[in-house]
Amino acid sequence: MVPANFVVADITDIYRELCLICHEEVTMTNNVKDRQFEVHKSMDEAFPDENALLVKELIAKAEKPGQDAMKMHPYYGGKIEVAIKACVRSFNDFAVWYSPGVAEPCKDIARDSDMAYEHTWKWNTVAIVSDGTRVLGLGDIGPEAAMPVMEGKAMLFKYLGGVDCVPICLDTKDPDKIMETVRLIAPSFGGINLEDISSPKCFDILDELRKDCKIPVWHDDQQGTATVEVAGAINAMKIVGKKLADANVTIIGAGAASVATFRLLLAAGFNCKNVCVCDSRGILNVERSDISENNSRQKWDICEKTDGAGKRGGMKEAFMDADIVIAASKPGGKTIPSEYIDIMANDPVVFATANPTPEIWPWDAKAHGCKVFATGRSDFPNQINNSMGFPAIFRGVLDVRARTITDEMCIAAARELARYAEEDHEGGITPDYIIPTMSETGAFISEAIVVGEEAIKQGVARLKLGMQELHDRIESTIERSRSLTAKMMELGLIKEYKG
Amino acid sequence: MVPANFVVADITDIYRELCLICHEEVTMTNNVKDRQFEVHKSMDEAFPDENALLVKELIAKAEKPGQDAMKMHPYYGGKIEVAIKACVRSFNDFAVWYSPGVAEPCKDIARDSDMAYEHTWKWNTVAIVSDGTRVLGLGDIGPEAAMPVMEGKAMLFKYLGGVDCVPICLDTKDPDKIMETVRLIAPSFGGINLEDISSPKCFDILDELRKDCKIPVWHDDQQGTATVEVAGAINAMKIVGKKLADANVTIIGAGAASVATFRLLLAAGFNCKNVCVCDSRGILNVERSDISENNSRQKWDICEKTDGAGKRGGMKEAFMDADIVIAASKPGGKTIPSEYIDIMANDPVVFATANPTPEIWPWDAKAHGCKVFATGRSDFPNQINNSMGFPAIFRGVLDVRARTITDEMCIAAARELARYAEEDHEGGITPDYIIPTMSETGAFISEAIVVGEEAIKQGVARLKLGMQELHDRIESTIERSRSLTAKMMELGLIKEYKG
Repeated sequence: MVPANFVVADITDIYRELCLICHEEVTMTNNVKDRQFEVHKSMDEAFPDENALLVKELIAKAEKPGQDAMKMHPYYGGKIEVAIKACVRSFNDFAVWYSPGVAEPCKDIARDSDMAYEHTWKWNTVAIVSDGTRVLGLGDIGPEAAMPVMEGKAMLFKYLGGVDCVPICLDTKDPDKIMETVRLIAPSFGGINLEDISSPKCFDILDELRKDCKIPVWHDDQQGTATVEVAGAINAMKIVGKKLADANVTIIGAGAASVATFRLLLAAGFNCKNVCVCDSRGILNVERSDISENNSRQKWDICEKTDGAGKRGGMKEAFMDADIVIAASKPGGKTIPSEYIDIMANDPVVFATANPTPEIWPWDAKAHGCKVFATGRSDFPNQINNSMGFPAIFRGVLDVRARTITDEMCIAAARELARYAEEDHEGGITPDYIIPTMSETGAFISEAIVVGEEAIKQGVARLKLGMQELHDRIESTIERSRSLTAKMMELGLIKEYKG
Repeated sequence: MVPANFVVADITDIYRELCLICHEEVTMTNNVKDRQFEVHKSMDEAFPDENALLVKELIAKAEKPGQDAMKMHPYYGGKIEVAIKACVRSFNDFAVWYSPGVAEPCKDIARDSDMAYEHTWKWNTVAIVSDGTRVLGLGDIGPEAAMPVMEGKAMLFKYLGGVDCVPICLDTKDPDKIMETVRLIAPSFGGINLEDISSPKCFDILDELRKDCKIPVWHDDQQGTATVEVAGAINAMKIVGKKLADANVTIIGAGAASVATFRLLLAAGFNCKNVCVCDSRGILNVERSDISENNSRQKWDICEKTDGAGKRGGMKEAFMDADIVIAASKPGGKTIPSEYIDIMANDPVVFATANPTPEIWPWDAKAHGCKVFATGRSDFPNQINNSMGFPAIFRGVLDVRARTITDEMCIAAARELARYAEEDHEGGITPDYIIPTMSETGAFISEAIVVGEEAIKQGVARLKLGMQELHDRIESTIERSRSLTAKMMELGLIKEYKG
């Protein structure tokens, strides 16, 4: 049921969403009949009075992004390319860029390996490494099939953060081989972004590589997601007028994102005695006989630190008296029963971040009194999405040549995103705007700056730039990047797509 | 001594060369005094009448490419970047390029991994893999220090062949780890270009990886060099009016390039009974007790196949009655004594391809009656350089999605380069023009076409394109690539360098 207080520009928006949702869920089975049935069923439940013709039109509309993707990916032959960024005035310039001139920069780096940041693209280059074991909601689809996602990520990195990324999908699922490969390729890059690697192996892979590598290693499904969740949580608490240290927090799901979110929430000022984490078997607490340090170090740590905030039981009990619920669990719209909102504290806040469909529909949450509601989707208000994190964080990290990305740098990013939304966005924060959107370029620039500054402050930066220089570099790199794509389109170097 | 029949535009050209040569040789010792002494000595020997002031000016001039490289590499922060090549009309397009739309191409590839060639940049992407153990003439300088060369190679690949390359320098020298890394990263690429890996491990690494990988693996220091040597040899034999099958061939050096050149020369029509290969210890023959199948499979194979063309002894004996000498050995200008030219057959041909300085100076070779002389340098006539090989060969290979690069494809490339020089170059071949130059775009296009056609003919191509379609693709890709750099310079996206 669509409550009157759920504001949408047009009722067809919700229709479109529903179509998209059902399509996403059901095409997994590749069964068209099932899918159409499901779509009709959902539509009928939600809008029993609408006519069948409209439904068919909307199904067609909902399938568009996927259909476009199937045509547009082959049309462009992928999404990124390598471009030359140094002058080629004549063939003579190759004597500078290649033999014999290139020998001098080589020798300079042989004397001091850090000179690679001066002479090569290392300073701005990140490898996006995946084994394809947990891609989007598609699961273990293998390295080749993971490539379109990693290329898309590279596109976002470049467009939003001006970062040069190389997608590297590995033909192995073995954690040791993944780690070894990253260690071996590390000299060529300024950073490593691990992506879509299944849990729990992703934890050890990240921890080990952070110890071993001289360049920052980041797992976006851990630190990236957590940073943006924390930014949203800080502002949501402002909206409902509650202090972080007093707020009862419930985290639904105990995968990569949830474990990292737990850690960063504490670092941001939430109190671990008020935090309750709930996995598919119930609330994490010290009495859970199925969890031990051996079978899940991360979960056991949460059991010990929180003891479920004194709660016992399942998801329902976890919701009891919670001021904020952050879910990163199972997609589907019905994962969280709407009645659970009723037993939360006053002015409840819910982040339902499963992709592609949130754990509970916005209209259901709002109908049950949810004060601030966020999802992972760009087409609902309050998108809690990694793309507000990784491009700017890496921009700052790379510009000061940081050796690592600390939790403090993530917290600085989260706080700046929150501050930007409150102070720099026209109109400030509202229940439907707690975090900046992708179109707010200024937010990326501000976020990158604080990350760079925090790295310098913590002594993990190779370059100690002044505030103004850092600002100028960040701003010009991000602006040049967007301008490059725009100009390539203008000149026909990126062809127009007429779909 | 500069003989009158050695044609140069300006006497200062030779001065410049000498400076460059001496500089290159002696800076290896990092001893400036030595270098200046050597420069003066060489200059004085060659041109005893010139004044000392001019010499000093010319030394300064000769140091320019290296000096420029030291300024221009940091100015541009490396030489390549990642660019977006698909349209971004608004942020909504990210719903097609990333989640949720991207899930459809992912699923398509999960069903058939070859669809990665349609949906991702794999079709045009090559990893340039090096362990930095044999970089230029600098030796084992490590992975970071090898990066400027690999980035330069990526630049040539893109500018000359329209190929997207990612430099990956590995933090290991262990052949097993190099091979394992290549196997693991292979799903992300359409081809692998091994580069500057020391001999003899490079042989097994190439052979094993060619067997293991579903994408073409190429070692440019083997197949690439050999292809261009063979192209030159074919035309040199035309100039002196000798048949390939009858020509006596001497190869000086038995490293990666020489072993591959030997193999390709036979495939091109030279007779192995007429081939004599000479390493630093003398002529390879069956009586060489220091060579066995165990300590060098490649050299032993040459011993067995050629038995030194019946010759015994050292480099001097190897030169006896040779119609063509192909040297890929030690740089320095005096590696081959000029008197050795005297004992070759009539109208002798010498390729002195060591870098940065040929094994014998052009003027010395010519003074002793050398009819056709070639080096690896762009500033002497007849440059035998890999850049006439790899960009076009990979263009053809990638456009038909070849599974491997066969020797027959290399031979086709070599023959087409030779044919182009003879038939399509205005004026045809002469003793000073036996092979096309980098500025002849048409030569790259023709070469790429025959490589693609040969792959189709041999059944190693995934795509069987018609001649016209293949031509159009190749031509448009190469032309777009050059145009991209030119337009980026025009628009200031590649800044002007004011050195």
